[in-house]
Amino acid sequence: MKSTLALFLAAALAASASAKIVTKPVAYTHAGTALEGVLVYDDEKVSADKPAPGVLVVPEWWGLNDYAKSRATQVARLGYVAFATDMYGKGVVTTEKGKASELAGQFYGKPLMAERAAAGLAQLTGSGLVDPKRVAAIGYCFGGATVQALAYSGAPLAGIVSFHGSLIPASAEAAKANKAKFLVCHGAVDPFIKPEELAAFTKSMDAGKFDYQFVSYAGAIHAFTNPKADAIAKANDLVGGVGYNAAADRRSWAHMRAFFAEIFAPAPAAKK
Amino acid sequence: MKSTLALFLAAALAASASAKIVTKPVAYTHAGTALEGVLVYDDEKVSADKPAPGVLVVPEWWGLNDYAKSRATQVARLGYVAFATDMYGKGVVTTEKGKASELAGQFYGKPLMAERAAAGLAQLTGSGLVDPKRVAAIGYCFGGATVQALAYSGAPLAGIVSFHGSLIPASAEAAKANKAKFLVCHGAVDPFIKPEELAAFTKSMDAGKFDYQFVSYAGAIHAFTNPKADAIAKANDLVGGVGYNAAADRRSWAHMRAFFAEIFAPAPAAKK
Repeated sequence: MKSTLALFLAAALAASASAKIVTKPVAYTHAGTALEGVLVYDDEKVSADKPAPGVLVVPEWWGLNDYAKSRATQVARLGYVAFATDMYGKGVVTTEKGKASELAGQFYGKPLMAERAAAGLAQLTGSGLVDPKRVAAIGYCFGGATVQALAYSGAPLAGIVSFHGSLIPASAEAAKANKAKFLVCHGAVDPFIKPEELAAFTKSMDAGKFDYQFVSYAGAIHAFTNPKADAIAKANDLVGGVGYNAAADRRSWAHMRAFFAEIFAPAPAAKK
Repeated sequence: MKSTLALFLAAALAASASAKIVTKPVAYTHAGTALEGVLVYDDEKVSADKPAPGVLVVPEWWGLNDYAKSRATQVARLGYVAFATDMYGKGVVTTEKGKASELAGQFYGKPLMAERAAAGLAQLTGSGLVDPKRVAAIGYCFGGATVQALAYSGAPLAGIVSFHGSLIPASAEAAKANKAKFLVCHGAVDPFIKPEELAAFTKSMDAGKFDYQFVSYAGAIHAFTNPKADAIAKANDLVGGVGYNAAADRRSWAHMRAFFAEIFAPAPAAKK
């Protein structure tokens, strides 16, 4: 085991040492709104001749800020092509909860949520670098809800990962349209998700025969993956509701990697 | 990524090719009952000079049968020292649910559950092959409940993994005594665990500030890790309640491995 691990680490180090991360702003338009997302990939691993799995990254309700972009870079370092997508419009970001609530409020419960995300997905799959059969979407908070909505719309996704996302119960129609496996990473004591909302979500997953994994992380509250969450909480009077949790961050990322390993290269013996 | 994976697989294959799995029956006594467990380890990786993490394996309510022993062997192949423990008495196994219920019924709600498991744990740590700071316990069904009880008793465990275990809420006393991190692998539609039991369990985990991860696997019912569960269910009129689920089996094993990687070699940045 030790030698296996050592070899693995050596290979991982070698791989990371030879990485050449490329970051490209991509301008596009959806429903009259000018948007700008960011395509991120490792130029030494990915090319038009060597397409890789693609991962759409949907930001928190603050908009496409540095945090969301940093997650895209982390995904690119795994060897995937990431697209940090823009939901609000070029350069529209905020650090103020009232404004964030207003921006996110345009999408909840409306077809626009999936449609705007699909516009970003098209930029990812249209990059020419992505294997169209191996595409996933991940999202944080508002973005977690968005990737659920995107899957419910029937988007060609192998899987989605929701990190501390709001939970949208799946309708029967969504269950029929959905193609994605779900990994839901949830803060066990997130005060923004009520027990009855959680129950309604998992009930709809079971009823719709979704292939899902739902993970609760002890002590984790809203935004547990964001290292800046404590400062954000302080500035927005959200202390106790929003906060970073290093263990839950690390564990949910490891679970995402295991999930990607499965959905991007299914084991021959895999059963649904 | 691909080359990393290839190297990793090559190393894993090499490691498995050179494995020399040793299986030793171990006779011991607890509270007047003669017991016989099985110590399993890889003789090429582990020795008194090269101690390894130890893993106690607690069987389903059927007793120490081939399934439990096969899990110990799988654990040994990961490079750990496994002890498949005997809860009932030497050779006491059954395939009949009435008898199993009677056997398991001796332990539920009684100190004997943790005490009998601790007797097995002493065999593991007393083997001379185990690093006493890196010990975990895993268990299946009844065994899942048993490893919870063992942790609640204050046993020196870095972690426990419960696979489709009955869920025992932690008392305040248990929370104080507990030293283990918890990974709870649960079948999302297991009809033997009522929603209120699940809620009481996680509530006690949160109240006691346990470091836990609770994972629900879609479509999985009781005994989802046991490839023979369907046959067992048929013979015992438990179809629909007990059954194998290959995806949940594979995923929960992967989650256990990630959990072991963490608790047996904590990341420097790890926070509780």
